[in-house]
Amino acid sequence: MSGEQDVRPDLRAIREAAARIAPWIHRTPVMTCAALDERAGARLFFKCENLQRVGAFKMRGASNAVFSLSDEEVRNGVATHSSGNHAQALARAARNRGVAAHIVMPDNAPAVKRAAVAGYGGRIVPCAPTLAARESTLWEVVAQTGAAFVHPYDDHRIIAGQGTAALELLEEIPDLDAVVAPVGGGGLASGTALAVHGLAPRVRVVAAEPRNADDAFRSLREGRIVPSEDPRTVADGLRTSLGVRNFAILREHLDRVILASEEAIVAAMRLLWERAKLVVEPSGAVPLAALLEDAGELRARRIGVILSGGNVDLDRLPWGPAPATGRSGG
Amino acid sequence: MSGEQDVRPDLRAIREAAARIAPWIHRTPVMTCAALDERAGARLFFKCENLQRVGAFKMRGASNAVFSLSDEEVRNGVATHSSGNHAQALARAARNRGVAAHIVMPDNAPAVKRAAVAGYGGRIVPCAPTLAARESTLWEVVAQTGAAFVHPYDDHRIIAGQGTAALELLEEIPDLDAVVAPVGGGGLASGTALAVHGLAPRVRVVAAEPRNADDAFRSLREGRIVPSEDPRTVADGLRTSLGVRNFAILREHLDRVILASEEAIVAAMRLLWERAKLVVEPSGAVPLAALLEDAGELRARRIGVILSGGNVDLDRLPWGPAPATGRSGG
Repeated sequence: MSGEQDVRPDLRAIREAAARIAPWIHRTPVMTCAALDERAGARLFFKCENLQRVGAFKMRGASNAVFSLSDEEVRNGVATHSSGNHAQALARAARNRGVAAHIVMPDNAPAVKRAAVAGYGGRIVPCAPTLAARESTLWEVVAQTGAAFVHPYDDHRIIAGQGTAALELLEEIPDLDAVVAPVGGGGLASGTALAVHGLAPRVRVVAAEPRNADDAFRSLREGRIVPSEDPRTVADGLRTSLGVRNFAILREHLDRVILASEEAIVAAMRLLWERAKLVVEPSGAVPLAALLEDAGELRARRIGVILSGGNVDLDRLPWGPAPATGRSGG
Repeated sequence: MSGEQDVRPDLRAIREAAARIAPWIHRTPVMTCAALDERAGARLFFKCENLQRVGAFKMRGASNAVFSLSDEEVRNGVATHSSGNHAQALARAARNRGVAAHIVMPDNAPAVKRAAVAGYGGRIVPCAPTLAARESTLWEVVAQTGAAFVHPYDDHRIIAGQGTAALELLEEIPDLDAVVAPVGGGGLASGTALAVHGLAPRVRVVAAEPRNADDAFRSLREGRIVPSEDPRTVADGLRTSLGVRNFAILREHLDRVILASEEAIVAAMRLLWERAKLVVEPSGAVPLAALLEDAGELRARRIGVILSGGNVDLDRLPWGPAPATGRSGG
């Protein structure tokens, strides 16, 4: 990424991203569910990014990054390391632009996500499931191919793209009191913070995080990035720690981080399937989980909730009854 | 139901129903999914009635029936027999109107559906799982309570209400070649046929049915109602045979019935969960299943598909890996 492009996006940049990616993404619906409102004691407006192309908001950022690159920059394709939705999104966005995508994936990534990347024409480069292995493999790939690296979250074009979800949400439901987004690396959370700050500065911006991977909570409290070490959470999309650009934006524009237990995440995910009829992955259920556990001053408010994604292995659902034999047989 | 009200609904009646029920239902989104289009070899527009209140289109007909009754007629509440979504819908609609709902349910109805009826304040009256027991129990309840009987499908107010889904679909996507709805008792299919015939007579109306419960297919071929006997299909909402009013309408306005095998129904349901991220019940997956198995002249067309509902027991999903011990333990 060239230095001159690396400028923190403002509302105008997010609007430009929205126009740039419009042909390549769904404008996702905003859903309400009386049963969930009753449980939460609040009025919830779900921005259904699980219904987004490739099943996650990541399509927004990846599309903005891929279509922001010049013909020269993108000539040898794009590359990234990702165990999940960014991988699928970048592969799909690259196919849309007609260039190659080299995706470094840990060899323990869910089969459903590997199959999806391959289905979108991405070239999968396996690596050991450590951050060091991911990064070294990625740089080998970039050196060999000349592909442009698109970081999953610590990238201002990615952040601007992810901010378009909150932009659409606020355009459709302007009178919200707060918007809650899950936070892992912070691409969605920081994009949401910038969009809300730019469009409706009186609306609070809240990030939701698994209690077992609470690096954003601790980082913002301590005023420096405090990475999670080996976080154990069912919310596989949120095991990543905050990126540098993401932290800087959240530090300035985030009102609060709310936390969710593992039990609450699974219960919230199941509620979304059972009552809202939406297939949402564990990471996408974290905001509802945190609101159900600890709404605090958000109770009785009108809250936008970004359901970030819906990519789940249907053979490995996190609720019972599923005896160990059944799971290992999958 | 008094004789003078028992008039086959036309487009105007369906529009009146739409206005009557608007405060009580969701205007559901129409979704598209490139992966499913590719599989079907057609452009599919999914009308998401699984995202409807109570998780099924049944809320439309039940609301129209309950709010069509006079204060006098509804004074002692409403009653019906139903093993499923009509039960929930009538309970919810009655609560919306502030009257009682007496729901005769077979004692083998799924726990999730019983719990939902109770949650909406319905009074469940259990009966043996035979049609004879359902009907005799219902008439006892009606005699005891003076409640107004609202039939699940063989009722013109119900049919008009169900027709509002296709009305919304055609308002949003006018240039369809066909609309496909599942057919069981025929409430949705006949309402869809009337709406499409009234609004866009050049659009074909197709009903989809499990091959193992193909009474609509046979009835329309033979020109008389030929009930299914003990149909065995995973699509529990479509085991019912056609009603008299429903048959009369379908005979006049339906273009074709397409059939789906059990394997195709489960596969289509899983595809909808996995690729479209929508929780759809087996009955709701029957149109896609039939299109994937036997699109025939519908291939390459623009097809509206009504996803009729999403009420599923998440502990008893029809796909593997789920060893017998795990299922019986649920």
